[in-house]
Amino acid sequence: MTGKVWLVGAGPGSPDLLTIRAARALAQADLLLYDALVAPEALELAPNAQRFCVGKRGGRPSMDQETIHRLMIRGAQRGKRVVRLKGGDPFVFGRGAEEALALAAAGIPCEVVPGVSSAVAAPALAGIPVTHRGLASAFVVISGHAEAAYRPVLEALAPQSLTVVVLMGLASRAALAQLLLERGWRGSTPTAILFAAGSKDALTWRGTLATLGEASAQTRADAPGTIVIGEVVALVDVLAAPAAQDATEDAFEGGRHARRG
Amino acid sequence: MTGKVWLVGAGPGSPDLLTIRAARALAQADLLLYDALVAPEALELAPNAQRFCVGKRGGRPSMDQETIHRLMIRGAQRGKRVVRLKGGDPFVFGRGAEEALALAAAGIPCEVVPGVSSAVAAPALAGIPVTHRGLASAFVVISGHAEAAYRPVLEALAPQSLTVVVLMGLASRAALAQLLLERGWRGSTPTAILFAAGSKDALTWRGTLATLGEASAQTRADAPGTIVIGEVVALVDVLAAPAAQDATEDAFEGGRHARRG
Repeated sequence: MTGKVWLVGAGPGSPDLLTIRAARALAQADLLLYDALVAPEALELAPNAQRFCVGKRGGRPSMDQETIHRLMIRGAQRGKRVVRLKGGDPFVFGRGAEEALALAAAGIPCEVVPGVSSAVAAPALAGIPVTHRGLASAFVVISGHAEAAYRPVLEALAPQSLTVVVLMGLASRAALAQLLLERGWRGSTPTAILFAAGSKDALTWRGTLATLGEASAQTRADAPGTIVIGEVVALVDVLAAPAAQDATEDAFEGGRHARRG
Repeated sequence: MTGKVWLVGAGPGSPDLLTIRAARALAQADLLLYDALVAPEALELAPNAQRFCVGKRGGRPSMDQETIHRLMIRGAQRGKRVVRLKGGDPFVFGRGAEEALALAAAGIPCEVVPGVSSAVAAPALAGIPVTHRGLASAFVVISGHAEAAYRPVLEALAPQSLTVVVLMGLASRAALAQLLLERGWRGSTPTAILFAAGSKDALTWRGTLATLGEASAQTRADAPGTIVIGEVVALVDVLAAPAAQDATEDAFEGGRHARRG
């Protein structure tokens, strides 16, 4: 009897931003393969599962993709209910589609459980809507992981035409900013970085496209960051949650930021 | 004593795609203002709330935006816990940011509870990842509601450079397709419409950019539709859920579609 794999989105960091369907899949899981960015409390929703962290953690390299595929397939072939828990949404970057294709090729039943994507939720939780009438009627989501992938996309965007959301772009923030400035985007374009969105360590850096390259914040070295570029970012001044508005000012460079409780 | 408003995303249609945080907000709500597209079962999560549908329903016009603002503000001023439940994510179109700004202007505490956006989840539930290595390293989300808003965005996109997701674009699908074809997008670009994603009436239309304008499907006249344009759409042939692969063929034009159980 073949088992099944659920590719489940864990949302942007807080365990109560999992969906009810995700929680149900976890509750009946026999085997749980999770990314490093998934909140520890989310794992407790799978009390009966063998658990393996398959993501990068503490500087050690992540498990290679082939091994993840093999673990999922073998588990299902032994009749297990396997949950592959991924940060955010399983099909927004993060190689979820590759995992689904590997399962399909092996004839393993697979169900995708969409999650709350950090691309939208990290800004929203900080008080930044990715769309707003008169400011942005569209948004684009890119990964900052590989220049070969993001360069042609950014080069094709008309300056100030929409909100740009960059996932996995902290390391390349200077290059991203430079590229947009060269393409004619205004240096004054409001820009934010949402660090560790949805977690208790959430922190907002607020600056401009011109200062993005030098942005830094006192936060965990491995905190994920979502970059948002566009006029909607200015709304953070009105819409930031009260906890953020009461924020203490910490040491920072290149902008200002608010620690959220 | 002032109450509070929660701007809550209901996800793409199925009540178990609400987040745990959304369910908790509903459970303690005194007043619930919901959009027409929200699943009836989701309303049952708010057993103690006065409920008002404030969205378009049965051809009648929706409540005007000022009235919605006033209802939220008055409720909170009377000490009520008000949940404003919106389809998908509250900050992806749908005027959520306007509602948050109105609340801020009135001094009403407001918390945004991000939801699973149809922009990502409608394709995912049908077997279409919006990103996939080698096929699409970015996606753009636009509203097809107003040409003045979508035209400059679409005109700025380099042909075949990313996945295009259109919300509220059913009525303008012919104009959208025409615009992209004129800008050099290939007529053979795989294209899908996900009708009523996440609900039991979910239905996938599959065609190309060249046939999008003539696309139709036997579905509820008021079923929402998410349009996806890009090479990733071809993955539906491998990744569609088994229910879709067992689909019966219904009458259709301009493509083929699968009814999902």
